[in-house]
Amino acid sequence: QIDSARLWGTIHETAKFGATPKGGVRRLTLSAEDKQVRDWFRKACEDAGLEVQVDALGSMFGLRKGRDMSKPPIGVGSHLDTQPTGGKYDGILGTLAGLELVRTLNDAGIETELPICICNWTNEEGSRFAPAMMASAAYVGDFTTDDILSRKDAEGVTVAQALDSIGYRGDAPVGRQEFSGFVELHIEQGPILEAEGKTIGVVDSGQGVLWYDGKIIGFESHAGSTPMPLRRDALATLSEIVLAMESIAKKHGPKAVGTIGEAVIAAPSRNVIPGEIAFTVDCRSADAGIMDALDRDLRTAVAEIAARRKVEVQLDLVWRKAPTHFDPKLVDAVENAAKQLGYSHRRITSGAGHDACNLNTVIPAAMVFVPCKDGISHNELEDATQPDCAAGANVLLHTVLALAGV
Amino acid sequence: QIDSARLWGTIHETAKFGATPKGGVRRLTLSAEDKQVRDWFRKACEDAGLEVQVDALGSMFGLRKGRDMSKPPIGVGSHLDTQPTGGKYDGILGTLAGLELVRTLNDAGIETELPICICNWTNEEGSRFAPAMMASAAYVGDFTTDDILSRKDAEGVTVAQALDSIGYRGDAPVGRQEFSGFVELHIEQGPILEAEGKTIGVVDSGQGVLWYDGKIIGFESHAGSTPMPLRRDALATLSEIVLAMESIAKKHGPKAVGTIGEAVIAAPSRNVIPGEIAFTVDCRSADAGIMDALDRDLRTAVAEIAARRKVEVQLDLVWRKAPTHFDPKLVDAVENAAKQLGYSHRRITSGAGHDACNLNTVIPAAMVFVPCKDGISHNELEDATQPDCAAGANVLLHTVLALAGV
Ligand SMILES: NC(=O)NCCC(=O)O
Ligand SMILES: NC(=O)NCCC(=O)O
Repeated sequence: QIDSARLWGTIHETAKFGATPKGGVRRLTLSAEDKQVRDWFRKACEDAGLEVQVDALGSMFGLRKGRDMSKPPIGVGSHLDTQPTGGKYDGILGTLAGLELVRTLNDAGIETELPICICNWTNEEGSRFAPAMMASAAYVGDFTTDDILSRKDAEGVTVAQALDSIGYRGDAPVGRQEFSGFVELHIEQGPILEAEGKTIGVVDSGQGVLWYDGKIIGFESHAGSTPMPLRRDALATLSEIVLAMESIAKKHGPKAVGTIGEAVIAAPSRNVIPGEIAFTVDCRSADAGIMDALDRDLRTAVAEIAARRKVEVQLDLVWRKAPTHFDPKLVDAVENAAKQLGYSHRRITSGAGHDACNLNTVIPAAMVFVPCKDGISHNELEDATQPDCAAGANVLLHTVLALAGV
Repeated sequence: QIDSARLWGTIHETAKFGATPKGGVRRLTLSAEDKQVRDWFRKACEDAGLEVQVDALGSMFGLRKGRDMSKPPIGVGSHLDTQPTGGKYDGILGTLAGLELVRTLNDAGIETELPICICNWTNEEGSRFAPAMMASAAYVGDFTTDDILSRKDAEGVTVAQALDSIGYRGDAPVGRQEFSGFVELHIEQGPILEAEGKTIGVVDSGQGVLWYDGKIIGFESHAGSTPMPLRRDALATLSEIVLAMESIAKKHGPKAVGTIGEAVIAAPSRNVIPGEIAFTVDCRSADAGIMDALDRDLRTAVAEIAARRKVEVQLDLVWRKAPTHFDPKLVDAVENAAKQLGYSHRRITSGAGHDACNLNTVIPAAMVFVPCKDGISHNELEDATQPDCAAGANVLLHTVLALAGV
């Protein structure tokens, strides 16, 4: 059993790096606050006897030796970056539970057959740089390291510049750290476990993701003197697209979601009809066929709206991640651990994307979910209980012991 | 007859202050560019023998003496500020036509009975500070000078600070400069004159204006894991409001317009459902009864949308300007001048707001419109022809001569 109070303490200790007045965390990837938590994490790993490596995209790997060093380690961990108005648990729980697991093994003097590696993956959130889960995507070869290094944030700062500015462009080539398997603990970020009174989600699958960059080019004109029928209003166009995305997703019931998260009017003014808007779209399903339908229906709706309103709409797919089916053996290992520890549990699909979803394409991977209050995440009010966090960390510990061998 | 080439020359000479790559002008009120054009205008007025006064809100008044100095002058002019992506004519034509009129009288050695005063009113556009036509509104007593001085732009800079920073907080109390009448020349900013092939619009009325500040408070949550029915999406809410405003205005055919010009998502992120949005509404009609209906229908629609989507929507009326009915004698004077000069003309309602609309509540006022290309304004592509601008300036000259007496 892990030390519940110690785990809870590290979660609340690190929450000060980027703490917001509303009780959340603003720790955008590769920011000054991210450097603070990274420095803290590196020291904590070193104090626990781990050897820490940083790769060329800033991902951090803390290695605990096993008896058999000829085999790659079992990976655990998640990410330490947050949304602009994020919470204290998303990503952080999984990374710090990895640290807690190692501290527990150290205290008990337990040696494992395989080594264990705690990971902190760079830019899981995807709000400063696209795509989300950027570093693990490069790890599995979905993107080259150079491509990712050249991605820019809204201010035009590249990933390479951001890494250098906080001193976290490491020496290790991306992909060099190998794994025999990977297990990620995370809060559910959805309402199911709480609603059903289950402590552990045994994650067997994850939604696929479509991300688009959009631009609407209408025509700026005077809000007072331009007759309604002559307008080519970029915001009215966006409004129709937002509502179309909503109804397209809803057609698939609980099997799809669709969101416009960003929309920026160029040169806005109260008495000017908006002429240009940049926006983004995020839509998802765990069913590849539904993902195709979402893409097709969205494009059809956008084309119809653009033609009718005589505006130009560009819609570029910038990321497509296929649905995830986690490794059956590892999923079983998670389920067995939950069973043995006597926690109520159920199989579950992840609504959010996770580094484990990327890693699963080249390494056997699985995930452990614990409930979060009202299913709220990507919000400063994100919350989880100490017993649930400890339960998740215990399931992680016992899954890893089963996989790494004692 | 005014000197068409000289007028055209001043329009294009001053267009360099804040010139944009697309051929427009970005000269927000009380900005560094506004200071440049003000300095130019002050010198041009002084070179033409005018005495220049600046009032406590930065409005500039250039006085040409008349034979009878016991009577207040006939005012002409408009404004020199522009929209963020504005054109070369909106406001500028009317102000520089005032200068051209004085230069023409000087050259011809014509003395008038009443003095003549060229005005440059501060912040007509209303995009940096609300409301539009701020200085003339204070002039007529709709707002106190102190209230206006404390208004803030989006960066939190007050009108008082902005005036001080460019050295245009003048000594003259607002309202001290009196007028016997006021005539403003302006581009139409709408499509009617051009469509009907008329050179001069004899403006007899103007639309009333309703300006609102709005805020939507929904709930931020994860775009991937939050089921569609559980969302409280601020952007989807705004989208319904935008489309509701559009259809509410359209119900009144050509007699109303409605626009959402600004909308800013707080802490936007691709994979976060927008939780909070600030927006503005501009709606207008020349019919006071329709203005009441617009206000009522908008509030009803917003309340219904907010309740159904379980979000909070605040909608504050920040400015209400009643429809304008210009002074019949001055309107006739404009019409006579157009007739005598042989220009095709028609009576017209102004879709846009103008300082003359404010002044008309305390001084007899009227306006002269000339066509602009495709009715486009508040756009860098705004355009007007040299002959039309000259025709407008000639009508202004002859109207002023009739009112001021030779
Ligand atoms: N777990 C999580 O919130 N990931 C962010 C990436 C995404 O799913 O949008
Ligand atoms: N003439 C003009 O564009 N005025 C700006 C104020 C407004 O009508 O919105």
